[in-house]
Amino acid sequence: MPRLTDLLPPLFQRRYHGATGRDPRSTEALCRDLLSSHGEVTGGEMARHILDRYAEADEETRRAFFELLAEFDVDADALAEAVRDYAEDRSRGRYQVLARAAEPQRQELARRLNQVPGATVRLVRMRADLLRFAREHPDLERVDVDFRHLFASWFNRGFLVLQRITWESPANVLEKIIAYEAVHAIGSWADLRRRLEPPDRRCYAFFHPAMPTEPLIFVEVALTRGIPGSVQSLLAEGRTPLPPGRADTAVFYSISNCQPGLAGISFGNSLIKQVVEDISREVPEIGNFVTLSPIPRLRAWAEEEEIDLPEDPDELRRVAARYLLTAKRGNAPYDPVARFHLGNGARVHEIHAGADTSDAGIRQSGGAMVNYLYDPGRIASNHEAFAGEGRVIASRSVQGLARAAENRRARQKESEKT
Amino acid sequence: MPRLTDLLPPLFQRRYHGATGRDPRSTEALCRDLLSSHGEVTGGEMARHILDRYAEADEETRRAFFELLAEFDVDADALAEAVRDYAEDRSRGRYQVLARAAEPQRQELARRLNQVPGATVRLVRMRADLLRFAREHPDLERVDVDFRHLFASWFNRGFLVLQRITWESPANVLEKIIAYEAVHAIGSWADLRRRLEPPDRRCYAFFHPAMPTEPLIFVEVALTRGIPGSVQSLLAEGRTPLPPGRADTAVFYSISNCQPGLAGISFGNSLIKQVVEDISREVPEIGNFVTLSPIPRLRAWAEEEEIDLPEDPDELRRVAARYLLTAKRGNAPYDPVARFHLGNGARVHEIHAGADTSDAGIRQSGGAMVNYLYDPGRIASNHEAFAGEGRVIASRSVQGLARAAENRRARQKESEKT
Amino acid sequence: MPRLTDLLPPLFQRRYHGATGRDPRSTEALCRDLLSSHGEVTGGEMARHILDRYAEADEETRRAFFELLAEFDVDADALAEAVRDYAEDRSRGRYQVLARAAEPQRQELARRLNQVPGATVRLVRMRADLLRFAREHPDLERVDVDFRHLFASWFNRGFLVLQRITWESPANVLEKIIAYEAVHAIGSWADLRRRLEPPDRRCYAFFHPAMPTEPLIFVEVALTRGIPGSVQSLLAEGRTPLPPGRADTAVFYSISNCQPGLAGISFGNSLIKQVVEDISREVPEIGNFVTLSPIPRLRAWAEEEEIDLPEDPDELRRVAARYLLTAKRGNAPYDPVARFHLGNGARVHEIHAGADTSDAGIRQSGGAMVNYLYDPGRIASNHEAFAGEGRVIASRSVQGLARAAENRRARQKESEKT
Amino acid sequence: MPRLTDLLPPLFQRRYHGATGRDPRSTEALCRDLLSSHGEVTGGEMARHILDRYAEADEETRRAFFELLAEFDVDADALAEAVRDYAEDRSRGRYQVLARAAEPQRQELARRLNQVPGATVRLVRMRADLLRFAREHPDLERVDVDFRHLFASWFNRGFLVLQRITWESPANVLEKIIAYEAVHAIGSWADLRRRLEPPDRRCYAFFHPAMPTEPLIFVEVALTRGIPGSVQSLLAEGRTPLPPGRADTAVFYSISNCQPGLAGISFGNSLIKQVVEDISREVPEIGNFVTLSPIPRLRAWAEEEEIDLPEDPDELRRVAARYLLTAKRGNAPYDPVARFHLGNGARVHEIHAGADTSDAGIRQSGGAMVNYLYDPGRIASNHEAFAGEGRVIASRSVQGLARAAENRRARQKESEKT
Repeated sequence: MPRLTDLLPPLFQRRYHGATGRDPRSTEALCRDLLSSHGEVTGGEMARHILDRYAEADEETRRAFFELLAEFDVDADALAEAVRDYAEDRSRGRYQVLARAAEPQRQELARRLNQVPGATVRLVRMRADLLRFAREHPDLERVDVDFRHLFASWFNRGFLVLQRITWESPANVLEKIIAYEAVHAIGSWADLRRRLEPPDRRCYAFFHPAMPTEPLIFVEVALTRGIPGSVQSLLAEGRTPLPPGRADTAVFYSISNCQPGLAGISFGNSLIKQVVEDISREVPEIGNFVTLSPIPRLRAWAEEEEIDLPEDPDELRRVAARYLLTAKRGNAPYDPVARFHLGNGARVHEIHAGADTSDAGIRQSGGAMVNYLYDPGRIASNHEAFAGEGRVIASRSVQGLARAAENRRARQKESEKT
Repeated sequence: MPRLTDLLPPLFQRRYHGATGRDPRSTEALCRDLLSSHGEVTGGEMARHILDRYAEADEETRRAFFELLAEFDVDADALAEAVRDYAEDRSRGRYQVLARAAEPQRQELARRLNQVPGATVRLVRMRADLLRFAREHPDLERVDVDFRHLFASWFNRGFLVLQRITWESPANVLEKIIAYEAVHAIGSWADLRRRLEPPDRRCYAFFHPAMPTEPLIFVEVALTRGIPGSVQSLLAEGRTPLPPGRADTAVFYSISNCQPGLAGISFGNSLIKQVVEDISREVPEIGNFVTLSPIPRLRAWAEEEEIDLPEDPDELRRVAARYLLTAKRGNAPYDPVARFHLGNGARVHEIHAGADTSDAGIRQSGGAMVNYLYDPGRIASNHEAFAGEGRVIASRSVQGLARAAENRRARQKESEKT
Repeated sequence: MPRLTDLLPPLFQRRYHGATGRDPRSTEALCRDLLSSHGEVTGGEMARHILDRYAEADEETRRAFFELLAEFDVDADALAEAVRDYAEDRSRGRYQVLARAAEPQRQELARRLNQVPGATVRLVRMRADLLRFAREHPDLERVDVDFRHLFASWFNRGFLVLQRITWESPANVLEKIIAYEAVHAIGSWADLRRRLEPPDRRCYAFFHPAMPTEPLIFVEVALTRGIPGSVQSLLAEGRTPLPPGRADTAVFYSISNCQPGLAGISFGNSLIKQVVEDISREVPEIGNFVTLSPIPRLRAWAEEEEIDLPEDPDELRRVAARYLLTAKRGNAPYDPVARFHLGNGARVHEIHAGADTSDAGIRQSGGAMVNYLYDPGRIASNHEAFAGEGRVIASRSVQGLARAAENRRARQKESEKT
Repeated sequence: MPRLTDLLPPLFQRRYHGATGRDPRSTEALCRDLLSSHGEVTGGEMARHILDRYAEADEETRRAFFELLAEFDVDADALAEAVRDYAEDRSRGRYQVLARAAEPQRQELARRLNQVPGATVRLVRMRADLLRFAREHPDLERVDVDFRHLFASWFNRGFLVLQRITWESPANVLEKIIAYEAVHAIGSWADLRRRLEPPDRRCYAFFHPAMPTEPLIFVEVALTRGIPGSVQSLLAEGRTPLPPGRADTAVFYSISNCQPGLAGISFGNSLIKQVVEDISREVPEIGNFVTLSPIPRLRAWAEEEEIDLPEDPDELRRVAARYLLTAKRGNAPYDPVARFHLGNGARVHEIHAGADTSDAGIRQSGGAMVNYLYDPGRIASNHEAFAGEGRVIASRSVQGLARAAENRRARQKESEKT
């Protein structure tokens, strides 16, 4: 597998030393000049200045920068005219005028900023700021529409590189895995090593070639014999690794997005699909692909429903099954993790009580977890059923649990009435 | 320097084997389904089918595909309405509707096609076909406006990787250098080796990470002592390479674009700028950066002007100087190569007769060639003068030649009158 | 697969530029000073001088260098004394004295020469010269005993790196494959490409990390359906490659040693063993591993035996079978290729007439070729039978052919008598 | 820079999985069979068995293995005869007999064990055991003579690869840097990062291609302005890195050998020489190359001399200067670190009190440290003076300190007399 940092153009890096002095122009003037410049001859310097100023700016100045971007808006009058003209005569020339009028200048500005080496990651961080600001300044939301559109094009699936992360990966990548793990925190380098080095562990991440040391999203996988029902035992410190050839199941026990600035640009389903294909090829004995997933909103939903989460494990499983199969927000499952995996074509396979005994696990779901199952032969049809008809596919046993919960609830309601 | 093919995601490649059977849907239906699909779950297969069909299609079917794309046009009525709505209320929601209406679906289609491994190069080749068809079918020109817009974003300078091409480069890259050299043809692998292996030769190319074995543009450089005036002596078969440390000049003697499908997406000025910086750093003794360039339209212009290209070397140089400094097409230099280098901030430095004695050289310019000089300290100001005022910067000696030519011509006209 | 040239320490290479001036000492004085120097402080420069002088020397001077090495011999008196002392008292001190006395200084000299970057390949080329000289100067043969001993240690199997050679390999490696192919000459880069690029072709080579652009030995493999009986059809220019998944046989159709200076250091059996393992893993459908080998001494032997090689294909196969199964030189097979493969644990599997219709093929064996079969499950036992008892293992059909030939010959002799 | 793990032959690794069952033969029988085997056909399996058994063996069994090796000794009678024969007739044949008789079989055995992938590092660890055993079993010392001879050949300078260690290096290499740092312990990954990531820090290591994740020796370097006199301030946690271009001095503040099994195979002087050359090239502004070294035996010597190490900083420096310039053990400096650097051609440049205030620093030398200076232009002559005449080269100021100490001591002795 190629080395991640090999993707960073080495000649670029060196060039980066030649940083230069201050420019007397205002940032607005620099942006306007950059937009009117031709090619890299003078544009590169201007782009660098703008990015450097942004990097050194305080919150207030950064917000002001986005307000400037908000002004680089679509000219509605010009666009209206261009549409009229084009409707009359669908010529190349008029189409070009239309296309130009339809795109706000801030998009072209972002593309021109990107000509500087290392700019892509800086633009991604810029959007993370923007999303923060936009929460309180709704006029900035329009700016984000353009950032998101641009990033969806730049971070197109076809440009992403799947890399396996191992204990041989560069430390500057691994420290980001530690930092970004969002589901089951990695406490130390020794803990990280336990998740990467044993022969029954895997980790994969997507990278973009222009940000070769920044994972975009990663998934941690355990190869097991049988489908496990507890994350603590999966990650136990003293455990004996399963010898190669013994595993029949791949468990996706953690998926983490790494870049707040890429919020809304979805990579997760590609990642799982790809990793399933890869493990199938590398370890043909593996026949089951499941997650061991949290049920993060179970307790919140129960409170809304005025149900106490039961202590009894069997009871808890039944309630969780009912929640996963029937609780909705609009047309979609109430549970965000369910939404994600069901949307990818997985089915609800099994529910475990006492499966995540960490503070977070107890707080969110009374310790319950769920296996979503990815059956390569059924992913497409499951996905269709879910995306088309909103049907939640589940195993018979989980269906049974949900039915039991509903029956009991019907009986309760009945008895409440009387 | 990282190996080019390391940029190709290895897991992608393997996955590519899993090609699949036929799909009964029409290409149009596939395109519509792809546009309405969610994520990679089913979209990937559809994208692959469409690309495979295109690859196997004959000319007629390919043209029909672009006509289909022409139909995925902007809906002028919907856009007009969206503009009106937005002009009234600049909310996020209305802006989003506007943005969506402003972009024709064929752009999103192209992005979704690109999710398949190896799709980018196929889309680039697709555009090469499109450009061919559009010459005779002007309604396809609008389709190209979108391809070009998309490619300008994807092939943004910030995503390009500069690589040195050497005799250690992979053969599958080198064969493309042989194929694409457009200025001074490379006759054989031995000829290629003479341009790559000696210590006084350099070759650099831009690559895109999604097309790691396809150079986008490359430049061939000779390190020399003094500024050379003949390309044949530069490339002579038996020549002795200059020992390292003796060279004071870097001569860009050939720049070739490789991808017809990326026509109009300009990389050349970035490439020269970058290579100048790189060589400066690697070989600090080098103080001069010049081209040894053809004057491809000299004879064509002379014929328009009803001048015979002079046999006399000094006369030829004077005519060529006048041509380069004064002949215009609109506001721009008549000569396309002059346009390119002057636009990049170079100046006209010296003119040589008998400099390219190949058939093509004699046919185009009577054998004359020109050195454009890149002076790192003056590139920006030259560029400004040229881009702003259309001023052609030239050395004193070339100015003198041009003046002499004009004086003689004035005298001729004078004498013709009498 | 890592890139070959990555194995070359990059810091070494650069350092190499700092070549230095002349040294007034004689080569003999330099050698003696190098032997008495401590560490790299001054030794490096001396080693470089000696190697540079050798590189620039003419034949006569080179031969003189080896005569100098012949003088750096074992001191028989000192060694005899050391043995006596050691026989008396097997102490560490006396053993050390013995070990030092037992090794001629030229071995230490070679090791010290090797401290210079790039020295290993120069020492290997030095031995190629030495072998040439030794043919006419038997006193130099002793020098070669030490070179060979040293190289057997340095080029130990554990230090060799198996690399697949593909059309993506560096051109400076590929040009050596063209140059070194010894069995079926490669006529051009296009010819090379036909042997590397199609999905049913493989090429593997051993490299030593200190000589990363110099293959030591390589094998060319065709993946086929069924066991082929003609090398010309295997290499035919217009042939259609077999689609992946269709092949059931791997044919080793050419094995070439690359380094004359490593003569007698055997890599061939390791290479075949390793490649069999590798292909088994990569393409599990492949069940047969055979060679398609020349029978280089068939005609020579027939002439010794006063037999005319028959024109009739069946007759030719019978004679060839008899030759391969019974003709000996001492205890070993008469045929050198048979010796190699039988010694590696292969068996004689099938014989083909009209299988190599090139000039060389007709000249050596009347066009006959042979398949040796490597059956992974029998390699060890075949090898034991051959190495231990000199038994040539062959398939029944070849045994039948050989028997038929012997019967006919017995009848002929019978009839000659009468 | 190539990635270290790229040096590990990938095909080897995979092959390694195919481990096999038990062999009924005794280890001695396996060793004898391995010595009499031909090539890799059966030898590989035997070698693997022997190494696996060793790896799993307890101390007693391991010691027994070395005793077996002790028996594979030189046959003194046979060697005596071979010497006699060779003295009579210096033919190739007799030389070959001699050469074979002169080498004990355990050397060939080690070479044959090395054919297994990954064997080299196992043999190096084997020798680490051997050195331990040999301390109590002097008969094993002879076995080590052969291991050392073999390793000196295998780990010849020409085969070592210098690699820069950075924060981008693989974690499995970095964890070894943490483990092996012998001079100033690395307490955590954060501490390691502080030594690798800042722009004014460097770390270089030698590797052998057959052990690509095992550094052999490494040196840590700080780029500073001026020559520092305290290691604690050099490594202070909150310090501000020096901007590139400001440094004029490279300080080698720690050199650590990593492989106990390579004791006595010296890499240190090559490493320093190489790193000096590398930094000179990369950072031409750097003119001074110094160490900041411990004086590990200062207190031990002072006790032998019945001197109390003075508290007064100036006094301490004087005593240390006298110690470094005059204290000997035989002909060599008493201090092992001084021995190493002076032998490499450095000079004693400056002495600092209060320079290492760690427990170890106070214990060894009362906190004093020394700068050895590597002046590229004087390394060779310093080395000659030291190696030839035993002359310790020192700066004037240190000479002055030493003189002051001796004068005071002479006065003391004088006064003691009276």
